[in-house]
Amino acid sequence: MTKTELLKYIYEISPADISAINAARKRQESLAKPPGSLGRLEELSVRMAGITGKVKNYPKKGCILVFAADNGITEEGVSCAPASVTLAQSINMTLGKTGVSTLAAHYGDELRVTDVGIAADYNCPAIRNRKIRYGSANFAKEPAMSEEECIKAICVGIESVEDALSDGFELFGTGEMGIGNTSSAACVLSRLSDAPIEKTAGHGGGLSEEAFAHKKEVLKKALMLHEPFGKDPLEIISLVGGMDIAAMTGVFLGCAKNKKPVFADGFISAVAALCAARIAPAAMEYIFLSHASVEEGFGIVSRELGLKPLLHLDMRLGEGSGCPITFSLLRAACAAMNNMATFEEAGIDDGYLEPLRK
Amino acid sequence: MTKTELLKYIYEISPADISAINAARKRQESLAKPPGSLGRLEELSVRMAGITGKVKNYPKKGCILVFAADNGITEEGVSCAPASVTLAQSINMTLGKTGVSTLAAHYGDELRVTDVGIAADYNCPAIRNRKIRYGSANFAKEPAMSEEECIKAICVGIESVEDALSDGFELFGTGEMGIGNTSSAACVLSRLSDAPIEKTAGHGGGLSEEAFAHKKEVLKKALMLHEPFGKDPLEIISLVGGMDIAAMTGVFLGCAKNKKPVFADGFISAVAALCAARIAPAAMEYIFLSHASVEEGFGIVSRELGLKPLLHLDMRLGEGSGCPITFSLLRAACAAMNNMATFEEAGIDDGYLEPLRK
Repeated sequence: MTKTELLKYIYEISPADISAINAARKRQESLAKPPGSLGRLEELSVRMAGITGKVKNYPKKGCILVFAADNGITEEGVSCAPASVTLAQSINMTLGKTGVSTLAAHYGDELRVTDVGIAADYNCPAIRNRKIRYGSANFAKEPAMSEEECIKAICVGIESVEDALSDGFELFGTGEMGIGNTSSAACVLSRLSDAPIEKTAGHGGGLSEEAFAHKKEVLKKALMLHEPFGKDPLEIISLVGGMDIAAMTGVFLGCAKNKKPVFADGFISAVAALCAARIAPAAMEYIFLSHASVEEGFGIVSRELGLKPLLHLDMRLGEGSGCPITFSLLRAACAAMNNMATFEEAGIDDGYLEPLRK
Repeated sequence: MTKTELLKYIYEISPADISAINAARKRQESLAKPPGSLGRLEELSVRMAGITGKVKNYPKKGCILVFAADNGITEEGVSCAPASVTLAQSINMTLGKTGVSTLAAHYGDELRVTDVGIAADYNCPAIRNRKIRYGSANFAKEPAMSEEECIKAICVGIESVEDALSDGFELFGTGEMGIGNTSSAACVLSRLSDAPIEKTAGHGGGLSEEAFAHKKEVLKKALMLHEPFGKDPLEIISLVGGMDIAAMTGVFLGCAKNKKPVFADGFISAVAALCAARIAPAAMEYIFLSHASVEEGFGIVSRELGLKPLLHLDMRLGEGSGCPITFSLLRAACAAMNNMATFEEAGIDDGYLEPLRK
């Protein structure tokens, strides 16, 4: 896709179906329970109606799209793990050995790992090879990538969604593997939200306080190096982002275009969701936040998205690990919506119903 | 069971297995991820090890034990739903039509509904009949039940666990159906915690502010009526509790005695869990809090138990509706613990491992 073709694709994203949302709300109110007593499960089922246009849904086949890429910024000593871990864990994902792989297998969801920028050659046919380049450039010194490369990476995300759709998947999650990507995500978020790097940068995999102070110093300078730059997510990702963030941005856009629910997982994928929402505000209506990451900047990206995460489990693994758990929660919410009796069906008369109505 | 036999049964409850907990912690630290990055999933898997004595667990067969009973206190106008809803919804549960039934069916867990005090005769063979009496007495005027009836109800809970164990279940949840039971639960909690009724009473199914003020007034006077009374849960439940609370207390005790994980669901079952923990403090180590109920007193019972709920989904349906969701979460936590690679197996050397260790 050229930039023009991409913009045309994005232009076709339409908002959620309001009449289906209203019909779903009406059904929730008619179900035999105190109104609102299923809390966020009701919200999930209502949002699903807006996404598909139908009141009853059950998104069975789930696919978690993970993008792996290295980040040149690791040269600055901003991570506690060596860059080689990106490749090692990408391979381990395909072998069912990492956090997200064990959880996806447990819930019966598919995991697809795509290389959009691992800085090495290797032999692992289970990883889909869509390498844009061998790691991003060190954005403390130069732009992370060209705008053309950024667009290419976004298109890999879109293409991954389209491929999965043709394989029958109807529910999507995003994940990433890339040492250094809490640094790129923090810089992208700072630029999108105007929050200072002190608020968006976090301890990542487990930095010491000294190393964390160094990380913030490096990222602050890196952001200044690229000034002045605007608010266009394509420009921001190109300057201080990563190919994983770009590809996940593409996944959110592709799901919105195709009216499919898509989950952000932790901090990095939520930043990609914010990029997608800034490119196409209607995309927001297709996005769910799986869990509240403990990574420090998560609260900011959640607020900027205007979305509340579903789970608060003190997780900060990334990889897409929260997605299979919340896929299951979304399905449960749909099952309750679909299968509960209405007050009428439950044989509970208006003597019960009326005082419960507000 | 006589009171002496019950006390003997309870005396056999032993604490969790510390050496298995330590071994499970050690395994979690060895898994290829930043330490602690799976957050509360790690805690779940470690607690399971303490419960079973084994590092790897996978509690497949889950059973939700729901107890239905009416509450005489409804005569005072403390509920927005008529007492007849207790029976209607108990029957609907067995027909797969209520919130908890749709969720349990979705996750493949079994639901067992036991009548410990529905104030009516009816024909529904799917409800297990262990009726202690036709509803509790109106505790604004007299004790809710005799101590003998309270012990009988606790024993029904224990018996339900023993029955389910012989049917191969290994994971338990508690639920209730009983109009008026947020009133009894609030009074039991006030007495156990010394918190005033203003802090423990809530809006239940959806009381108006006027009706809520009336409810608090009624419960305050009811508590005074029975003064002085002690801190013995058996005495408290007999005076101001309900048969559902007593039976669920029995479930928590029975699970602890048999070293099986058991989930409290919302406010009322959490109060029953607190009764069990006060009777036998070691029982605590077998109890999980499924979700944070929106009912106002939930924070107090959660603090008194020293347990943090797993989900924050703004639910307040009761019925045991949170249990199937958290059964699934517990299994997922076990799957990650069992199947993730260690750093060694993942081919990640100590260069990665060391800086991550604190």
